[in-house]
Parts: sequence; structure tokens; C-alpha cells
Amino acid sequence: MKGNCIVAQSGGPTAVINASACGVIQEAMRQEQIEGVYAAYNGILGVLNEEILDMRKENPVDIEGLKVSPSSALGSCRYKVKKQEDFNKILDVFKKYRIHYFFYIGGNDSMDTADRVNKMAEKEGYELKVVGVPKTIDNDLACTDHCPGYGSVIKYLATMTMEAGRDTEALYTSDTVNVIEAMGRNAGWIAAGTALAKRDEPDAPHIILVPEVPFDREKFKARVDYFLSKIGRAVIVVSEGTKNPDGSYIAEQKGDFARDSFGHTQLGGAANFIKEIVEREIRVKARFAIPSTIQRNGIHFASLTDSKEAYMAGQKAVQLAAQGVSGKMVTLERVSDEPYTCETGLADLAEVAVGEKYLPEEWVTEDGFFLKYEFFTYARPLIQGEVKPLIENGLPRFIRFKKHFIRL
Amino acid sequence: MKGNCIVAQSGGPTAVINASACGVIQEAMRQEQIEGVYAAYNGILGVLNEEILDMRKENPVDIEGLKVSPSSALGSCRYKVKKQEDFNKILDVFKKYRIHYFFYIGGNDSMDTADRVNKMAEKEGYELKVVGVPKTIDNDLACTDHCPGYGSVIKYLATMTMEAGRDTEALYTSDTVNVIEAMGRNAGWIAAGTALAKRDEPDAPHIILVPEVPFDREKFKARVDYFLSKIGRAVIVVSEGTKNPDGSYIAEQKGDFARDSFGHTQLGGAANFIKEIVEREIRVKARFAIPSTIQRNGIHFASLTDSKEAYMAGQKAVQLAAQGVSGKMVTLERVSDEPYTCETGLADLAEVAVGEKYLPEEWVTEDGFFLKYEFFTYARPLIQGEVKPLIENGLPRFIRFKKHFIRL
Repeated sequence: MKGNCIVAQSGGPTAVINASACGVIQEAMRQEQIEGVYAAYNGILGVLNEEILDMRKENPVDIEGLKVSPSSALGSCRYKVKKQEDFNKILDVFKKYRIHYFFYIGGNDSMDTADRVNKMAEKEGYELKVVGVPKTIDNDLACTDHCPGYGSVIKYLATMTMEAGRDTEALYTSDTVNVIEAMGRNAGWIAAGTALAKRDEPDAPHIILVPEVPFDREKFKARVDYFLSKIGRAVIVVSEGTKNPDGSYIAEQKGDFARDSFGHTQLGGAANFIKEIVEREIRVKARFAIPSTIQRNGIHFASLTDSKEAYMAGQKAVQLAAQGVSGKMVTLERVSDEPYTCETGLADLAEVAVGEKYLPEEWVTEDGFFLKYEFFTYARPLIQGEVKPLIENGLPRFIRFKKHFIRL
Repeated sequence: MKGNCIVAQSGGPTAVINASACGVIQEAMRQEQIEGVYAAYNGILGVLNEEILDMRKENPVDIEGLKVSPSSALGSCRYKVKKQEDFNKILDVFKKYRIHYFFYIGGNDSMDTADRVNKMAEKEGYELKVVGVPKTIDNDLACTDHCPGYGSVIKYLATMTMEAGRDTEALYTSDTVNVIEAMGRNAGWIAAGTALAKRDEPDAPHIILVPEVPFDREKFKARVDYFLSKIGRAVIVVSEGTKNPDGSYIAEQKGDFARDSFGHTQLGGAANFIKEIVEREIRVKARFAIPSTIQRNGIHFASLTDSKEAYMAGQKAVQLAAQGVSGKMVTLERVSDEPYTCETGLADLAEVAVGEKYLPEEWVTEDGFFLKYEFFTYARPLIQGEVKPLIENGLPRFIRFKKHFIRL
């Protein structure tokens, strides 16, 4: 049916979430039955606060520029829709703005929201097509081979690990151990991705700690000692979500802001915790690095494969909705590893909402400190090619929308 | 005179210190009077321990690959030569290996060592030409317009700041403040360099804290408040060496490893300190990032201008030594800003050894939190162009020497 569409970006940004938005917006502009192409400013908050942008008024050059701009150009939020009045408000706003297509780019919390909105519309007989577009650097969404955003974060973090690894290699007589903290609250996918940096025996990283493997302090120290005696140094990548055998995080942050607005514990001290063990108990000097949000926005060295898939997922969501599909998320389905080919598929929003995908145990080496061949086969295709950002005066140039708010 | 030469890399690595080594090695191979082209493994330690590499036995492709490999491929160290017996040993090793040319790539501590070795050789009548090649991301060496390594670290850190800045811009309703810790123990050059990331009013960084400006807690909080009320967020870049009005560092690290082997205080807590102030006293959520050694090894987005100058400085050192120059460091002399041109000059090693160059006070804005036009004019030419690393399977490929140790 004819009507307007709205796109929103949710949760933690990625280097390529804008490529998905670009896919949605450009495809929506091509679809005859889609009239207004709208965007919610700051994710679902933009719907709740009626801060809705008219994307047809933006410069098409800026829309194309989404492909080379990191983070969420439409704004994002960590607001978890739970209250019934919020859901009512969302549907009211959709009716008011004649929105009949809703594209939500996000993780499982977002797919849960999308699912509920879809079901409510159905129940009320309001014609609405809701299609989700996967996004998360964490790569932990169910029902999809991998998630847009993941290839880029591991390409960049693996590069950081290679480069900082060479620093430790040069300075091992002084800075003997280096600890790099990777994002990943529940799953070790990101930390695992740095394994790609290791091609030869002396290459970093030497030890990878993931949430899926309970942290064994003594075994860890023995492994560090092994590398110290063998090559005189060690580079350790630790997931922020690495856990003790009792299930507690190795480094929970304390204080008033220890939880984010979804109620998740905010982490940050894993690298420091590991550094302290190395210095106090192994008695060698260690450094640590916390790339934090830098790692997930590295468009200047993002994966072209990832960017193209992110775009494809957004574009496909619009095509499917135009064909009448609703209540689904676009998935990425790997057809073959070599040559790598990938197509899109579909999953129920409800199924994605409740799922979570961990690093398979059988891909981790027996000692728990590295990744096996199977992981390399899985991850390597995802980091191929480089996005080429626009460079102006030696630095990337990112787009920023004019933000034409719709006043009804 | 005919004889062998030796090159060594010292102190903290940079993205382009290998380009300088490449300049030295390739030029040395072109000079008729230079026979053996040697390298000290791990800086001056390689001389003291007689771990000397024969660079003529390395693959020329690997030597050329130095231009696209970060950190110190010859190894580095933080060993400060102080004892007379060390100096005696250095000269003995030089005599034993018929080394008549010594090229030391490093900062002011290294220039001090080079100066003393040069003077000792002169006193003893041993013919030795000693020429220093400047290297430091800190950009605080005296007598030179800027230092190889600086352009690359600020290009990369400014890019990180832009990219993470967009994350905060997208998520300001949740992660309102972001603090990025820049290296720079005594001088604010590196943190200042992130100012280049700011082209438009909403761009990060919003506040830059440098060691040259004593940290004024109340003024700082007022400045954060200003940005919170104006744009709803703030990205703060803080030098690790930022100091309190009493001269103490805002965040000194405690414990057994609080000093490096030069006796300098090891820092690391500046970002966390600023984050805590923001959360406890301004009551908004803050994140922080510590790029640590990652920032100084970013060959994948290094400045081509910087890389070429690093090469030129190394090459020039050899040409000058071959012409009989000794006791000098090659300097970079800016001829003009626009179009930017730069030539080499010479400075006395002794003068470089005792000097230190701070960010000029008059380049900092009156409020102490940003940089003026003059800084942009100075820094912008240094970040132009991008080094293109070799990419293999989606990640950079760095060289590693075979290491042919000379056994006499």
C-alpha cells in the first residue's frame, strides 16, 4: 500500500550502520508505494518525541556519503521500550504520520521492540510492515551467519593488535606485556577476531581471553610465562566480558554509573585487571590499551565486504517490506567460504529477540587461549577489502545531515 | 674514510621510525666508503651486548618494506647509557667491528648518548662520524621545526577522535561525555593535534587538556557544562601529562612499576581521572578510551608527508656523515606553510640533548581548552597524504627481518 516509511538506528554505533541506513533510504526512494522517506532522530526516541526527519529534503550526496561515515548519522539511543504507553505512542505517531513501513536497524533489543510494534499493529488492524536490519559489532545475533558491523570492528582491532604488537616486539626489554581490551559483553567474537592478526609464530596476539572460557588465573599465568620464556613478550587481548569461574566479570566497574540504561553492567576494567596480575604476580612490566568506542567506528579502515553487506541488508529490508513481508529481520546467509558468497535470508523478529549466539566452544583451542582453524575460515572473508573514506586536508570527511524535522 | 656503519633505533617506536631506518640503510648501501651496513639489535643494547645485525644479508624487499611497517624493526630499548664503562664498551665494540659511522634514530636521551660517544671517540682519536636522526611522536625535540613520527600520530589520533566523536554524537542521550587519553608526558603536542579533527562547531574534540596549561577543575567543569547545554555532549582529549596547578600529574600511577627505566613517572590514569570528575561532579555518564601504544604505530593511516620526511632525515644523515659531518642531528626546517615545503638542517647533538620544546602558550586559546589558528597552520601540512601499507587477506603485511647476527 502507499504510505510513508521510517528508518531508525538503535544501540551502539558501528562503522557500517550508516551503510545500512543508506541501503534503506536509497531503496525506499526507488519504491513507488513509498512516499515520505522519514527517519527517527535518535532511534525510537525520535518516534516517541515526534522528532522525525524528512530524508527526501537531504542532499543525495550526503545520503550517499553515509557509506563512508561511521556511527549513526540519524542518531541513536539506548532507550528500551517496555511500557505499554510507549508502544501506544509509537503506533499513534505512525498513524499520525501515515507511516506504513518501519525499518529498524539494531540488535536483539531493537528486534524485540520491532516485533511488539508489528504485533500490536496487526492486532489493531493498522497496516504496517516491519522489517529489521541486523546491526551489532558483537556478532551475537541469532539466526544470521554474522552481523553487519562485525567484519569492520575485527578488521580494525586486528590491525591495532598487529601494530601495537610490533611496539611490544620492539620494546620487550622494557614494556614486556601489552593488554588490549576488546568490546564484547557476553560473547567473545570481537576479541576472537584479533586472532586474524597472527600469521607467524612471533605475531601478536599471543593470548586471547573470551567470556565463553572462564578465566583460570593460574593457567593464564603459566601461558604468559610460556611466551615470556619463548619469545620474551606477550600481547594479550581480553574481552571486557571475560568472566571468573563463578560467572562474575573479572572487572566490574563500581559507582553510580555501573549500569547502562538497559540495566546491563558497564564494564571497563578488564585490561587493568589483567595488567595488575601480570605486574604483581609475574613481575614484569605491562601496559594496557582500551580502544573503547574507537574500535567500532573505524570507517577509515573498515571492511568493504562488511560495508556492502550492511548496505545490502538495508536495501533488502525495503524490497521485502514493499512485497508485503513483515515481522522479519533480514539475515546474512553464507553460501560458501571460498570463494566467499553471501545472500540474504529472513528470520522471525521474535526469534532474533530472544536468541544470543556465542563463539562455538569447538572453535577455541583446547587451552582456551586461542582460536582454531574453523574460526579463521569463518572470520577471514568478513574483513576483505577496505572502505575508502573521503579525505580532505589529510583527515576523513564525514557527512552530517541538515535535519529537516517534519512539523505536522 | 672506509669502514662499517651502524644504525640503531631507540625509545618509543613510531609509525615512521622504520622509514628513517630505511633511509639510513638504503643510502648507506649507496655510499662507496661505507662497507658493512650494520644495525644494533634493540637500540644501544645491541652494541653493549654485541648483538649486531648484518643488513646487507637481508632481502632488499624487506628493507624497502620498512616504509610500510610500523614500530622499530631493528628492536628498541629504554636503556639510558650513563655509566662510563658502558661508553667504553660502546667504543670498544665500534673498534672491534670497524664501525666508523654511527646513526642513532631517537629522541633527546639518544642524542645525549650519541653526543657523548662522539666526544669520546674524538678524544681518543678514533675516527667516528656520529649523526642523529630525530624521532619522537612527542614533537618536543629542540632545534627542529617538528619531529618525524609526530605527523602520523596526530593524523591517526585526530581520526580516532573524529570517529569516536561521532559515536558520542549519536549516543549523547546515554553516553554523554567521552574522554580520550593522548600520549605526551611533558608537552601537549599530541593532544593538541586532535584539534585538526574539528572543522565545524559540533565536531569533536570540544575540550583539549595539555600539560602546558595547569588543570583548573572549576573552569573545566564550567566548560563541559557549556557544551552540554549547547550541543548536549562533550568529547575531551586529555594529555597523559596534564598537571595540577601544583605541578603534580593529575593522575600518577601507583605501585612497583610507576617509573620507567629512565626514571620517568609512568602515567596512565588521566582519562579515568577526568571521567570520574564528569560523572561525580557534573553527574552525566562518561566513557573513556586509552589508545596507548596503538596511537603511535598506526601505519595503516600514517601521514605520507611524515613518512617521506622520516626517510629523508635518515638518508641525509648518511650523506652528511659521508661528507665528514659529526656530532650533529639532522633537523627539519620548514621553508613555507603553503605550499608546504621542508628541508633538512643541522643542530648540535649537545643542544638537542638538553632542549625541550613545548607547545607555544600563544597557540592555546585564552580559556586554555583549545588551539588557535597558528597551531592549525603549523600542524596541518604534517598530516597530508596517506601511507599505503601492503594488504594481504584484509590486513596489513609488515616485514620482519631474518636477523643475521655478526659473529666475529
